[in-house]
Amino acid sequence: MSVEDSSFPRETALIGLDWGSSSLRAMLIDGQGQVLRQRQSAAGASSLHGGADAFVASLDELIGDWHGTGVPVLACGMVGSAHGWREVPYAACPADAAQLAAGALAVDWRGRPVRLLPGLRCDAGTPDVMRGEETQVLGAVALRPELAEGACIVMPGTHSKWAQVQGGAVQVFATQMTGELFAVLRKHSVLGRLMADEATDDLPAFAEGVRAARDHGEEGLSHQLFSVRTLGLTGRLAASALPDYLSGLLIGHELRAGLRWREQSSFLARAPLLLIGEAALCQRYAKALDLFGLGSVEQLPNTAAAGLAALALLTEEVSP
Amino acid sequence: MSVEDSSFPRETALIGLDWGSSSLRAMLIDGQGQVLRQRQSAAGASSLHGGADAFVASLDELIGDWHGTGVPVLACGMVGSAHGWREVPYAACPADAAQLAAGALAVDWRGRPVRLLPGLRCDAGTPDVMRGEETQVLGAVALRPELAEGACIVMPGTHSKWAQVQGGAVQVFATQMTGELFAVLRKHSVLGRLMADEATDDLPAFAEGVRAARDHGEEGLSHQLFSVRTLGLTGRLAASALPDYLSGLLIGHELRAGLRWREQSSFLARAPLLLIGEAALCQRYAKALDLFGLGSVEQLPNTAAAGLAALALLTEEVSP
Repeated sequence: MSVEDSSFPRETALIGLDWGSSSLRAMLIDGQGQVLRQRQSAAGASSLHGGADAFVASLDELIGDWHGTGVPVLACGMVGSAHGWREVPYAACPADAAQLAAGALAVDWRGRPVRLLPGLRCDAGTPDVMRGEETQVLGAVALRPELAEGACIVMPGTHSKWAQVQGGAVQVFATQMTGELFAVLRKHSVLGRLMADEATDDLPAFAEGVRAARDHGEEGLSHQLFSVRTLGLTGRLAASALPDYLSGLLIGHELRAGLRWREQSSFLARAPLLLIGEAALCQRYAKALDLFGLGSVEQLPNTAAAGLAALALLTEEVSP
Repeated sequence: MSVEDSSFPRETALIGLDWGSSSLRAMLIDGQGQVLRQRQSAAGASSLHGGADAFVASLDELIGDWHGTGVPVLACGMVGSAHGWREVPYAACPADAAQLAAGALAVDWRGRPVRLLPGLRCDAGTPDVMRGEETQVLGAVALRPELAEGACIVMPGTHSKWAQVQGGAVQVFATQMTGELFAVLRKHSVLGRLMADEATDDLPAFAEGVRAARDHGEEGLSHQLFSVRTLGLTGRLAASALPDYLSGLLIGHELRAGLRWREQSSFLARAPLLLIGEAALCQRYAKALDLFGLGSVEQLPNTAAAGLAALALLTEEVSP
């Protein structure tokens, strides 16, 4: 938990909570979606057992001093899942900001409402779901209104999300388990055995993995993954290069499938592609996209605050 | 460890060892490759630490009473790997039985030689390796001589191997990590959380996974894997059906890539496809192949004994 200067900015319009599986980030946000103060704790929704009391206690601990301010509180993320504070049913795609805001449900923080936003469900093909990323998509649209007319927004992570926006609404989206596959394969599979422990940043090995996926991905991910082992066994890649090669293979396969998916939506084939997320990870994706012929892709840091501000304007309690 | 009747059949021509990572199987084999006696222990190569002594002790424990018989001993599998009894360099593809036999190296079992066969290396594209499966391929060819002219042999498992035979030699092969991906994702990823613990055999769910890979595999494995979670979350598949759906997805992706790989070798596109391995797993693959339009694929149980017998005839100590 990090706590800063306890003064409470007068221009605060909203207490925004970005409450995911593994962390809780609380922000004081002004009417334009700017973050004035920010605190973070490890009280992610998946670590909280004990029902509503555990969520109340987490808020008390992190932002108890903000409770009495009377500023509205709006939350997005896994806090609204079946194992969260209260399950908030998914809104269905296509969904715009008004539809998401309308689906919010309130929980009680010692006499004050905390509104939990719904996640999004996409039923094109097999069902897909997100909780939290929809708020980032709307935040990007709030920051760059021209994206409302058409954009493909990529949010790399444990479960990367690819979302297509048109007419201000999230039309469709797709999840790729890239980050989790990397972590699980490195830690629990035979592929991790030859890898060096220390973190490296071997860009040539990363690029080699991306190119293998780009040029020979039809051989199948399950086959190409084994090359992480054989390139190590045969000494063609150093132990320290293997994690980045694996990362490149997985991200390359994500781009291969994601770009194809994007191109199949004809209205969006030329719409801008945008990366949102942690800078180092976005840089990695930008480098891979460059190898796929898409250079200079715009990157934005986490846009949840802007999304929460935009959505707060649509909920009953907040006036613009 | 299982030990049967201690009488030693007079028609024994060879003591064959199928010594993999996780188990040791010792067989008394006659001149035609038939198994006369068989014993098994959990002393797999990856569980033995302590160098040669540990391997000697494992043999003493399992087949100490066979030591004095004077019958030649031939071994295949991970026992010849860098972490085995002695590292035997890989033979390179294309390789036939004579080339494999020529690469064997001997270790000492208290005054008696144990010949360790080499594994195979395939340098078409990124390098690929196998240790043990090459002996099964040659066993299949020994049992079905017509396969020598052209066959695609699929050996499902933790690391499935697809091998193409022509002119009696293994020409090329490719590994798919299907079995390991299943185990790791079930045990260590978010996909396992919604799954029932008990083993099931839900054939409709398995077929649904295979069809998803067959019909929509271009969406990418990393994306389709997430549907294991969403189909569970949305109640479209029961918790007890999820493991089989995952299995179907993974095997479907293996077939998608493997069959494409097979078809690209023009000389083999019409050569017979054959499954070798444990019956229940081969049945599962046969069912998946049927969904890909390849019905009635022949299945053979483990053919290591026949392969060891064929290779023993080519080593100096054994006379036919």
